[in-house]
Amino acid sequence: MQIGEKKIERPFRWGIVGGGKTSQVGYKHRLGAMRDNTSFVLTAAAFDVDFDRCKEFGKNLCMDEDRLYPDYQTMFAEEAKREDGIEAVDIATPNFLHYEATKAALEAGLHVICEKPLFFEVEQGEEIKRLAEEKGKIVCVTYGFSGFELLQQMRSMVTSGMLGKINMIDLRYAHGFGCDPEGDVKSEGQKWRVDPSKVGRAFVLGDLSTHTYYMSQMICPDQKLKQVLCDRQAFVGSRYPLEDNAYVLMRYEDGAVGRMWCSCVNAGDMSSQHIRIVGSKASLEWNDMHPDELHYQPQGQPEQILYRGMGYLSPEAQEDERLGALHYTGLIESWSNLYGRFAVAMDAKNRGDEETLKNLVYPDLEHGIDGIKWINACAESADKGAVWVDVK
Amino acid sequence: MQIGEKKIERPFRWGIVGGGKTSQVGYKHRLGAMRDNTSFVLTAAAFDVDFDRCKEFGKNLCMDEDRLYPDYQTMFAEEAKREDGIEAVDIATPNFLHYEATKAALEAGLHVICEKPLFFEVEQGEEIKRLAEEKGKIVCVTYGFSGFELLQQMRSMVTSGMLGKINMIDLRYAHGFGCDPEGDVKSEGQKWRVDPSKVGRAFVLGDLSTHTYYMSQMICPDQKLKQVLCDRQAFVGSRYPLEDNAYVLMRYEDGAVGRMWCSCVNAGDMSSQHIRIVGSKASLEWNDMHPDELHYQPQGQPEQILYRGMGYLSPEAQEDERLGALHYTGLIESWSNLYGRFAVAMDAKNRGDEETLKNLVYPDLEHGIDGIKWINACAESADKGAVWVDVK
Amino acid sequence: MQIGEKKIERPFRWGIVGGGKTSQVGYKHRLGAMRDNTSFVLTAAAFDVDFDRCKEFGKNLCMDEDRLYPDYQTMFAEEAKREDGIEAVDIATPNFLHYEATKAALEAGLHVICEKPLFFEVEQGEEIKRLAEEKGKIVCVTYGFSGFELLQQMRSMVTSGMLGKINMIDLRYAHGFGCDPEGDVKSEGQKWRVDPSKVGRAFVLGDLSTHTYYMSQMICPDQKLKQVLCDRQAFVGSRYPLEDNAYVLMRYEDGAVGRMWCSCVNAGDMSSQHIRIVGSKASLEWNDMHPDELHYQPQGQPEQILYRGMGYLSPEAQEDERLGALHYTGLIESWSNLYGRFAVAMDAKNRGDEETLKNLVYPDLEHGIDGIKWINACAESADKGAVWVDVK
Amino acid sequence: MQIGEKKIERPFRWGIVGGGKTSQVGYKHRLGAMRDNTSFVLTAAAFDVDFDRCKEFGKNLCMDEDRLYPDYQTMFAEEAKREDGIEAVDIATPNFLHYEATKAALEAGLHVICEKPLFFEVEQGEEIKRLAEEKGKIVCVTYGFSGFELLQQMRSMVTSGMLGKINMIDLRYAHGFGCDPEGDVKSEGQKWRVDPSKVGRAFVLGDLSTHTYYMSQMICPDQKLKQVLCDRQAFVGSRYPLEDNAYVLMRYEDGAVGRMWCSCVNAGDMSSQHIRIVGSKASLEWNDMHPDELHYQPQGQPEQILYRGMGYLSPEAQEDERLGALHYTGLIESWSNLYGRFAVAMDAKNRGDEETLKNLVYPDLEHGIDGIKWINACAESADKGAVWVDVK
Repeated sequence: MQIGEKKIERPFRWGIVGGGKTSQVGYKHRLGAMRDNTSFVLTAAAFDVDFDRCKEFGKNLCMDEDRLYPDYQTMFAEEAKREDGIEAVDIATPNFLHYEATKAALEAGLHVICEKPLFFEVEQGEEIKRLAEEKGKIVCVTYGFSGFELLQQMRSMVTSGMLGKINMIDLRYAHGFGCDPEGDVKSEGQKWRVDPSKVGRAFVLGDLSTHTYYMSQMICPDQKLKQVLCDRQAFVGSRYPLEDNAYVLMRYEDGAVGRMWCSCVNAGDMSSQHIRIVGSKASLEWNDMHPDELHYQPQGQPEQILYRGMGYLSPEAQEDERLGALHYTGLIESWSNLYGRFAVAMDAKNRGDEETLKNLVYPDLEHGIDGIKWINACAESADKGAVWVDVK
Repeated sequence: MQIGEKKIERPFRWGIVGGGKTSQVGYKHRLGAMRDNTSFVLTAAAFDVDFDRCKEFGKNLCMDEDRLYPDYQTMFAEEAKREDGIEAVDIATPNFLHYEATKAALEAGLHVICEKPLFFEVEQGEEIKRLAEEKGKIVCVTYGFSGFELLQQMRSMVTSGMLGKINMIDLRYAHGFGCDPEGDVKSEGQKWRVDPSKVGRAFVLGDLSTHTYYMSQMICPDQKLKQVLCDRQAFVGSRYPLEDNAYVLMRYEDGAVGRMWCSCVNAGDMSSQHIRIVGSKASLEWNDMHPDELHYQPQGQPEQILYRGMGYLSPEAQEDERLGALHYTGLIESWSNLYGRFAVAMDAKNRGDEETLKNLVYPDLEHGIDGIKWINACAESADKGAVWVDVK
Repeated sequence: MQIGEKKIERPFRWGIVGGGKTSQVGYKHRLGAMRDNTSFVLTAAAFDVDFDRCKEFGKNLCMDEDRLYPDYQTMFAEEAKREDGIEAVDIATPNFLHYEATKAALEAGLHVICEKPLFFEVEQGEEIKRLAEEKGKIVCVTYGFSGFELLQQMRSMVTSGMLGKINMIDLRYAHGFGCDPEGDVKSEGQKWRVDPSKVGRAFVLGDLSTHTYYMSQMICPDQKLKQVLCDRQAFVGSRYPLEDNAYVLMRYEDGAVGRMWCSCVNAGDMSSQHIRIVGSKASLEWNDMHPDELHYQPQGQPEQILYRGMGYLSPEAQEDERLGALHYTGLIESWSNLYGRFAVAMDAKNRGDEETLKNLVYPDLEHGIDGIKWINACAESADKGAVWVDVK
Repeated sequence: MQIGEKKIERPFRWGIVGGGKTSQVGYKHRLGAMRDNTSFVLTAAAFDVDFDRCKEFGKNLCMDEDRLYPDYQTMFAEEAKREDGIEAVDIATPNFLHYEATKAALEAGLHVICEKPLFFEVEQGEEIKRLAEEKGKIVCVTYGFSGFELLQQMRSMVTSGMLGKINMIDLRYAHGFGCDPEGDVKSEGQKWRVDPSKVGRAFVLGDLSTHTYYMSQMICPDQKLKQVLCDRQAFVGSRYPLEDNAYVLMRYEDGAVGRMWCSCVNAGDMSSQHIRIVGSKASLEWNDMHPDELHYQPQGQPEQILYRGMGYLSPEAQEDERLGALHYTGLIESWSNLYGRFAVAMDAKNRGDEETLKNLVYPDLEHGIDGIKWINACAESADKGAVWVDVK
């Protein structure tokens, strides 16, 4: 169990773009980053398009007023002038700003943590990849559910062959909080999500399914997605041509198959994200409502429930352990584990430690690009009438 | 609560074809039929292709040896000669015999209860329909899970509009007992199920998904299926060209959509059959492992769990109640409720009471034909590479 | 799996006292007894104190009207005169009649199946024991929940030492259907249960806790109860001096301890009966709402869920298996398994096969007497102000 | 939802005694206190009896080395000299140091947050109460599970009468991590817990049950405990005369009754803490493994599950909401909510705002004293042979 061990020499000075008063996700970024103040220290922020609101918000968080900025351009420029300027930045804006803000951050010499979905086009991802390499920086993607420790356990069990050959990957991120169309108009956090000019080709496929898709990649690193077929609907009609519900079928290169259901009109469902991995010998099932419980189901044997924090888990699943068994975790611990890994990755990059970088499991730029490919292939399939399309 | 009330004047004399020593389902038929001996009395049987085994089996059940027959042809002929001959017969044979045995039974003047899937071809169904009408008999299909009382509750809630407009129907009948290919060779009950000459175009699509598909029709009587897309696999390769796993997407005439997952290679899953109905305002969720619990999830309100046997259920859901709340039911009660309805239907048919027949909710010949359409549309879609096909 | 095997040569001719129109439990007796008609055949009945109601009820069940009787005395006398008279009788009356009816039945040469709690006084039990021995008959007690197959699995695991030394036995039978005092007045099935002249010294202690107490004895055959302490209440005041809620603490001879909570005012609880056995190395947990699932919890290892019908269970837990895995059971199967064992016991007694009798696990006269001791010790403790009393 | 709102003008400068390298609970204190750095800022520490280990630990947390101290006496003295000295201190030491450290802190003019159980004797509590009043400071107790939002919901529902009259309070804090006696010797965090000189009269009664007992007081503020009866055991014999298992029965002044089971030898149980409140009309059930789900069970109506973060909850239950529905919380959020309330209480005390203090729901000195009374009454009862004793 982690009790006060150091993972990096000192915390990174860290800034944030977005994530202010009207953002529900900003709190998760801050809490995730600030665990024990050993990975990141919140140093500067451009929280909001409304600078007054930004300043009030920052002061409430006891931040230094000098480090609050009207926009990211100013923040990057001013911080660059300081000896104690920020070293990493978080892009927590609506989707359409991810690309330009990430680009500007890299050009300002910062490591980047960007909200999902990363960008709209694969080409943008490739360009950013070249830029990041050139600048010697890394780009992380906040698939915020992917830090749960039992996901590492799933990965350990899958890659060690405990399930036999992987045959099926069944994914779901489907809740009902979009049933009421009023939210599209009234909530600032929702409004841009249903505006194609702000989110690109997809609503729930981008907003929800990219999370679960990444998690499936993390758990099953050897499965290469080949084709998808997507049927999507706007049950709340005003959302058309974006979708509030989508069914996706998947085919992997090795013959495995999969499904994804993503939805914000799955009325009343409070257990939104489910992952089931079916092997030839056994299955694993996990959901994000009870993230510290993992069901392992070997065919013909008793079902097992594995709990977070226990000594029988794989070393990878115990690596981030801090609370101890019986003390259950929530979403914030997932974010904290993730941010802890981001800091380790940045530190390794700074030190030129490619070995550490290669072995560290975290959502990086490649995964972000995979997310773009996923969304675009699904949207293309749906727009052609729900036919099979290659993922590329 | 039902305590000794009569539903029909006297029980039907009832015979069975198949369902003997090597059949796992025969017990369910007998127990379902024989509740309190008020609906059916087991009178004659052709349990087995092996007549000695049939006789031994019948004697163990304390049956009159004279009423045990080497085959259904003999049984129908001999019973027809008796004043106390059977009035109804159960066809519990492998699938490929359903059509001819049903036809022979109707011609012998018997009501028929037939195992699912009914026949291989829609034309056979239509022919049997004409014959049944001509003979004034009915044909019931043993979708044995469809007698659970809470399914009636789901139907009541759906048809009364408590869920709003139905948007999605998510179905699953997926277990893992086919993971081991040895069963295909060793188990008599399994062997014929993977032989195309005995089961027609499909394995799990016929063996499993027809159950859940009927249940969805029963719950949502107003939803008309328009198109399906099916991707199927034989993860145990020897089963090809039959499938042991299938993903189906559905489109309904009114814009609703749905999914079905049926599988016998869903390793380790013990909660095999799930039904989720998603409306614009609320959802319902049920599974056959806990059949006396129904989850009602109105968006934005607390989730509710409704229990069988309670006074707050609809009259339809309480109609078959015999145990009382807290006393939980299993699969046998579902079969008993179903057989009770079959008896009421036969009695109504005999009395020319079309009103009762029309209002009685039970799987009849039309539903059996719908099941054939379902299987054939799925198989056609899969064979064309998983494309959309019309259900007809 | 049981498929049509014979356990006894032919079914017993069986009669019932009580269990008619106003009885909720009669259906469970009949269905339990009549599985496949191979253990018992319902032959005669004195269903009701109201003979007209008895006759109507019997006719609805398609019974021979000649075998319906106005009272058990007449039934025993008349049946004794027939060559095909009943051989066993079920006492399903209110508690205060158990003793005299059982005595009369034994004197009439019948095996007896009696509802719980057996009698009011230990002395009555001892007298009946002598009478039964003299007559060469057995007396069974319908602890109707005790036939679930996974209870046999629990017994196998406990007696084979898989839990280590048994330290705690935590029991609960606590529902809320007595919250409404109106039931005491309005329901015929409830009225006598709150009348001390009909039920003796206890209401829920007798009506509910004797079930769970027997099940704990069955699971842990080596634990000898030494002392109890009981605090009881009548939260619905009109029930005083009977209780509608009781907390019991238990001390076993070997230092193990236990608890029982029995209640009919545990508002809203639908999962009424729970059993938890805690050993020095592992625990078992079971509840009657999900009787086909058994939680096995070895300390420091993943929790396991064992399911009924699976090949990994002990031979004892598979002995009564008829449905097959995935096909879940309800309360009726528990009753059926129990009645099947009663028939085997009666047959063994008739054949003088003491070896079979000794090894057969079923609630016999001794267990019935233990139930009386349990109730009386609890009542005595409570009446003395909730102090420790010896169980004797 | 809380998004960056200020609850107090600026965070308190905060120190900690204990909670270092060998302490599992220290992380929870730090994370709880440091949410968004708006309630407390970790400023000084005496983490350890081993000063080198303290210094290394503090440096890993990026603390200023000058503010790391060899013991609390030095810390209080040195900090008192500074203008920016600490204003509040956390006592996270083994139990036997709570009293003297709290006393010294108050004398040094600090607000105190103390681990449970508070002290050994009621008299110590009374003395500290007088001292705190004299100094104008408050003493909070870290019942760390009591900050979950749904506990506030339970309180709202109980006090508003939704359950009717409260009849029963059923409590449990029983896990199995003490099954292995080796832990008593090998783990520094466990060793002192089984040493009477360090923990006083009780092991699990103090270590575990005080948590759940306080939570029951918080939920049912009007229930006054009158008598307890406790039977306790040391199933691991070396723990005698301390207990590793205890059963407690409770009687409240208004006739309600209750139970507590606390244990560290409840082998294999991973769902350790349960609270069930039974009223005359409905019950509530909650457990700390799934803290964001509350079961509300009105007798005769469908069961309801209420989820954290939803608009249908009481204002009190929404007050600390920061994550939003579907984003589930863990133990750290409970601690954070609690520390947030401690800060508000200290701020109110500083401002002389008695109104705020009176209405704020948090575990204060009185609750700490109640915990001492609870432990001592239980121990006294057990030592007298498990008899009823008054709580005083």
